[in-house]
Amino acid sequence: MTKITILIHCKDTSGIIASVTSFIHQNQGNIIYIDQHVDRQNGIFFMRSESEFVHDNFDLESFRSEFKYRIAEPYQMKWQLHSDDYRPKMAIFVSKYDHCLYDLLGRYNSGELKVDIPFILSNHPDLKPIAEAFKIPFFHVPYTKEISQEAQIKQLQLLEQHQVDFIVLARYMQIISTALIERYENKIINIHHSFLPAFVGAKPYHSAYKRGVKIIGATSHYVTKELDAGPIIEQDVTRVTHAHSIEDMVTKGRDLEKIVLARGIKLHVDRKTMVYNNKTIIFS
Amino acid sequence: MTKITILIHCKDTSGIIASVTSFIHQNQGNIIYIDQHVDRQNGIFFMRSESEFVHDNFDLESFRSEFKYRIAEPYQMKWQLHSDDYRPKMAIFVSKYDHCLYDLLGRYNSGELKVDIPFILSNHPDLKPIAEAFKIPFFHVPYTKEISQEAQIKQLQLLEQHQVDFIVLARYMQIISTALIERYENKIINIHHSFLPAFVGAKPYHSAYKRGVKIIGATSHYVTKELDAGPIIEQDVTRVTHAHSIEDMVTKGRDLEKIVLARGIKLHVDRKTMVYNNKTIIFS
Amino acid sequence: MTKITILIHCKDTSGIIASVTSFIHQNQGNIIYIDQHVDRQNGIFFMRSESEFVHDNFDLESFRSEFKYRIAEPYQMKWQLHSDDYRPKMAIFVSKYDHCLYDLLGRYNSGELKVDIPFILSNHPDLKPIAEAFKIPFFHVPYTKEISQEAQIKQLQLLEQHQVDFIVLARYMQIISTALIERYENKIINIHHSFLPAFVGAKPYHSAYKRGVKIIGATSHYVTKELDAGPIIEQDVTRVTHAHSIEDMVTKGRDLEKIVLARGIKLHVDRKTMVYNNKTIIFS
Amino acid sequence: MTKITILIHCKDTSGIIASVTSFIHQNQGNIIYIDQHVDRQNGIFFMRSESEFVHDNFDLESFRSEFKYRIAEPYQMKWQLHSDDYRPKMAIFVSKYDHCLYDLLGRYNSGELKVDIPFILSNHPDLKPIAEAFKIPFFHVPYTKEISQEAQIKQLQLLEQHQVDFIVLARYMQIISTALIERYENKIINIHHSFLPAFVGAKPYHSAYKRGVKIIGATSHYVTKELDAGPIIEQDVTRVTHAHSIEDMVTKGRDLEKIVLARGIKLHVDRKTMVYNNKTIIFS
Repeated sequence: MTKITILIHCKDTSGIIASVTSFIHQNQGNIIYIDQHVDRQNGIFFMRSESEFVHDNFDLESFRSEFKYRIAEPYQMKWQLHSDDYRPKMAIFVSKYDHCLYDLLGRYNSGELKVDIPFILSNHPDLKPIAEAFKIPFFHVPYTKEISQEAQIKQLQLLEQHQVDFIVLARYMQIISTALIERYENKIINIHHSFLPAFVGAKPYHSAYKRGVKIIGATSHYVTKELDAGPIIEQDVTRVTHAHSIEDMVTKGRDLEKIVLARGIKLHVDRKTMVYNNKTIIFS
Repeated sequence: MTKITILIHCKDTSGIIASVTSFIHQNQGNIIYIDQHVDRQNGIFFMRSESEFVHDNFDLESFRSEFKYRIAEPYQMKWQLHSDDYRPKMAIFVSKYDHCLYDLLGRYNSGELKVDIPFILSNHPDLKPIAEAFKIPFFHVPYTKEISQEAQIKQLQLLEQHQVDFIVLARYMQIISTALIERYENKIINIHHSFLPAFVGAKPYHSAYKRGVKIIGATSHYVTKELDAGPIIEQDVTRVTHAHSIEDMVTKGRDLEKIVLARGIKLHVDRKTMVYNNKTIIFS
Repeated sequence: MTKITILIHCKDTSGIIASVTSFIHQNQGNIIYIDQHVDRQNGIFFMRSESEFVHDNFDLESFRSEFKYRIAEPYQMKWQLHSDDYRPKMAIFVSKYDHCLYDLLGRYNSGELKVDIPFILSNHPDLKPIAEAFKIPFFHVPYTKEISQEAQIKQLQLLEQHQVDFIVLARYMQIISTALIERYENKIINIHHSFLPAFVGAKPYHSAYKRGVKIIGATSHYVTKELDAGPIIEQDVTRVTHAHSIEDMVTKGRDLEKIVLARGIKLHVDRKTMVYNNKTIIFS
Repeated sequence: MTKITILIHCKDTSGIIASVTSFIHQNQGNIIYIDQHVDRQNGIFFMRSESEFVHDNFDLESFRSEFKYRIAEPYQMKWQLHSDDYRPKMAIFVSKYDHCLYDLLGRYNSGELKVDIPFILSNHPDLKPIAEAFKIPFFHVPYTKEISQEAQIKQLQLLEQHQVDFIVLARYMQIISTALIERYENKIINIHHSFLPAFVGAKPYHSAYKRGVKIIGATSHYVTKELDAGPIIEQDVTRVTHAHSIEDMVTKGRDLEKIVLARGIKLHVDRKTMVYNNKTIIFS
C-alpha cells in the first residue's frame, strides 16, 4: 500500500475539490482525509488530502506526472506530493541552552519524531556530550563576525552533503545568513521565547518582566529575512504573576519552548503546514 | 444566492467524497467548505459541506430529492440538508440560576446567536422579570412529583405549538421526561457544571472541593436517558487552588458554564455537530 | 464584627511583618489572611492583610490613627485601610458595544459584583435601553473634538456629584482626558481587546489577523496617560486558526473581553491590587 | 547566610502569625516570604515562611529547639523546618515508558531540579541505557506476584541504603507495597495519565476516547493506599477532538505527563506542599 499526501494552493474557482477527488478516485485511491481552506480576502484555495492506494501496480511517478498534467496545470496550482515512505532529514542547530535539544532527542529516541537527524550543529562546543550520549554526529562551527562567511559556507556544505530537508533552530543564538534562508525557504523552524509579535528580538523575558504581563508565551515560526517576523506555526502561553522573577520566567518558559517547538516540527513533518502571504495554514 | 449545509454519515467506502463533490459541482454549486472524518474503529464516514448556488433557477427541493436519489440512497447515508435561510427556534428552560440566561439573552440581543427564542420555560417564577426585560414570553410550569405528568404534557404542548427545533437547559434543575428526550433526540443541550465524566450528578462543586482537584470544568452535552452521560459537545476548565471555598468554585464555575453552554449552542446552530455511538463529531 | 483590609508598601527592611501582625494582635484582631511580596530589584515591601475584630468596642478611626502613628509613619509606608462594610461606587463608561455592559450588569444583578453603580455614561445614546432594563441612570455625554472640553467637565461633574470611587471603561471608544486620569489615578479600569503589549491601539483584531497569530487575547489594565501602557491587572487568551476571519476573532474575543474585564474589576473591588512602577501586585 | 523554610499547621487560633513572625524577628531573621491558609471548614491554620539569617553565629539546631519549645508546643503544631543547604535525595521508579524519565533527567542535568538522584529502579531492564547515558545507577528489580515479597524488600533496602528522601513514580506500572507507602507517607509522587478523579485505574486514554471527552488531562499526586485517590498536587489538561485516535491521545498526553510530574516534583522539593485530610495546600 502507498499512502500519499497532496498539498495544493491556487486561485479559488469552482470545481477544484470535485476535480481532485475524482482524479484520485479514478486512480483507485481511497481518500482518507481531506481538508480545505479558502482565503476569501485574497481569493486563494488551499487543500490537503491523504489517500491510500492499495493495488499492486500503483506507480507514484506516473501518478505524479498525470496529476501535474490533468489537474495541477489546468488550475495553475502550486503543489506538493509526498509519499509517506520518506523520512525527512532534520538538522538541529543549537548554541548553549540544552532544554530543547534534550526534549527533541528524547522524542526522537522514543519514535515520536518521524525524522532522521543527520547531525547537530553548534557555534559552541558545550552540548557535544549530549549529542554523543544520543549517538548523533556533532559539528562545532564557530561563528563570529570575522569568520561569518567561512561559517556560512561550512553550514551550507554540511547541509548539502547530508541532504538535509529542513533545519530546526533549537535556541540557536546566531543570525542565520540570507543565503541559508533563501536556500531553505519555509524550511527553517525557529523557537522564539515570547508570544510574538510581543517582545521581538533579544531578552524577551526581561521585557515581559518589565512590562508586568500576566501571561508569557513561546512561538515557533518559519525563519524569514526579517527578524522574528516569519510565518507563525504554533504558539502557547503560561501564566505568571508579579512574584515571578526574570529567572522564574526563564524556567517556566523553557517548558513552553520545548512543547511549542516540538509541535511546530511535528506539523511540518506531517506536511500539515502551508505558507501564503507570510501566514501559515495549519491543517488539522 | 442559496447557501446549503449537508451533513452525512454512512459506511466508509471508496469514492464518497468524489461522488458528493461532483454532484454539487454538476448542480453548479460552489463548495466553500468541506470537512470529513472517518471513524476507523467502526468504519463510518462523516462529512460536512457548505455550498453556494448563485444561479437564479436553483431549486432547493429538487436538489434535495435528486441528492437523495443519486447520492444518499446508493451509499445508504443518514443525512441532513439545511438551508442557511432558516433560523432555528430555540426554547430555553431555566430554574432559579440566572447567569446562563443573562448570558444567552445578551448574545441573542447583540445578534451573536442566530436563533429565534419563542419562549423561556421555568419550574419557578423567579426569572420572569429577566424574560420581560428582554421581551421574551415566559411560561411558569411548576414541576413536582405529584404533577410531573401534567407538567410534561404542558411542556410538550408548548414546544409543539411554537414549533421549537431544539431546547437549551440553562441550569434547569429538573429531570427531563423520557418522552421529551425521545421527541428531541440530540436536540436538547444541557450544561453540566463539572468536567464530565468526573462528578456526575448533583453538587459537583462540592465533590470537586472534597476531592481537592486543582482544575474545575464545565460540559455541554446532548441529553440522553442516562443522567449526565450524553454525547459531549464542548468542555472547558479553569484553575482553582486550596484557597477556593465551594462558594468561590461556584462563582468561578459560572463563567465556565456560560461560555461552554454558548459554544455548544453555536456549534449546534451552525450544524457543526453530528452524533454517533454516544459521541459527537464536531466540525471546525 | 468589623473586617478590615490593610494594604501597605514601603522600603523593605527587617521586622515589618512582625510589627504589623503584633499590632493587630494587640488590638484583639484576628488575622485571617496575609500575603506579602518583596520586589527585590527595587527593595520594596508589599503586604495585604485581612483581619477581623469581634469585640464590641472596636473603633475603626482610633485604630486607623494608631496604626498611622505606631506603624505606618515609622516605616514610611504608603498604606490604605478599608472596612468591608463599604460598597464602592463604580461608574461605567460605554460607547456602542453592549457585550461587556450586559455581562457586568448580569453579574451586578446576581450579586456577584459587590458595588453600587450610580450611573452609566456614554458618548452615544444607543445603549440607553439596556441601562433602563436594568434600572440604572444613563447619561448621554456626546464627545467630539469641538466639545471635548465641555464633555470632560460634564464627566467630572457627574463623577463628583455621585461620589464615584472608580470607573470602568467597558469598551468606551473615546480618549480619557488627562484631568480625569490624574483625578482617578489607578482607579480607571480599561479592557483592551488584545494581549498587550502586542497590538496596542485601534483595531487589534485586524492586526492579529494580518500577523497570523494562533492565539488572541484581552487585557484589563489601569489607565495612564500613555495609551494602552498602564499597569496590567489581568490577561487571558484563546486559540484561533487560519480559518478564523477578523469577524470570527471579534466574536471569540468578546467572551475574553467580558471575563478579563470582570476579573480585573473584582480584583480591584476586593482590594487585591497594588500598583508600583507601572506594574501591579495582585494578591491571591 | 542561612535560609530556612518553616511549614506549620495547627488548630486555628488568634495570634499565631504574630507569634511566629515575632520569634523569627527576635532571632534576627528576615522574613522574605510568608503565606498562610485557614481551612475554615475544619478550623485548621497552615503557614509557610522563608527567612534569612545573616549573622555569623546563627545556629540552626538551637533555633530549632527554641522554636519547638516557645512556638510549636504551645500551639500544638505539626511542623517542619528545612535548611536550604540540604539537597533532597530523589529515587526514580520506571517501567518501560521513557518520556518522563528523559524529561526528568534533562531537567536534572541542566540544574533545574535541585535534587540528587541516587538511583533509578525498574521492574524491567529496558531503560538501563538511558540511566547509563546520564551516568545514574540503575537497579533492575523484577516484580511478579511470585516474588513480590522479595522485590519489596529489595526496594526498601535500596531506599534505606541510599537515604532516599522521596520517590518519583515516572510511569512505574506496578503496585506499590503498603509497607513502602507507610514508610514514605506523602513522599511518593505518582503521575496518573488522566484528569483525576475521571478515569481512575488502567488505560485512562482508552476510557477518555470511549466517553468522547473534548479535553484530556494528567495528575500528579501523593500515593496512598487507595489507588489513584491520594492528595492531588498538580493537574493540567489539553484539548482533543473526535479526530484523535487513542494513539494520538497517548502522544498528546505524554507532554502533559512530563510537565505535570515535573511541576509536582518541584513543588515538593521547594517545600511548597502540605497535606491535610487527603488534600494538598500548595503555597505560591
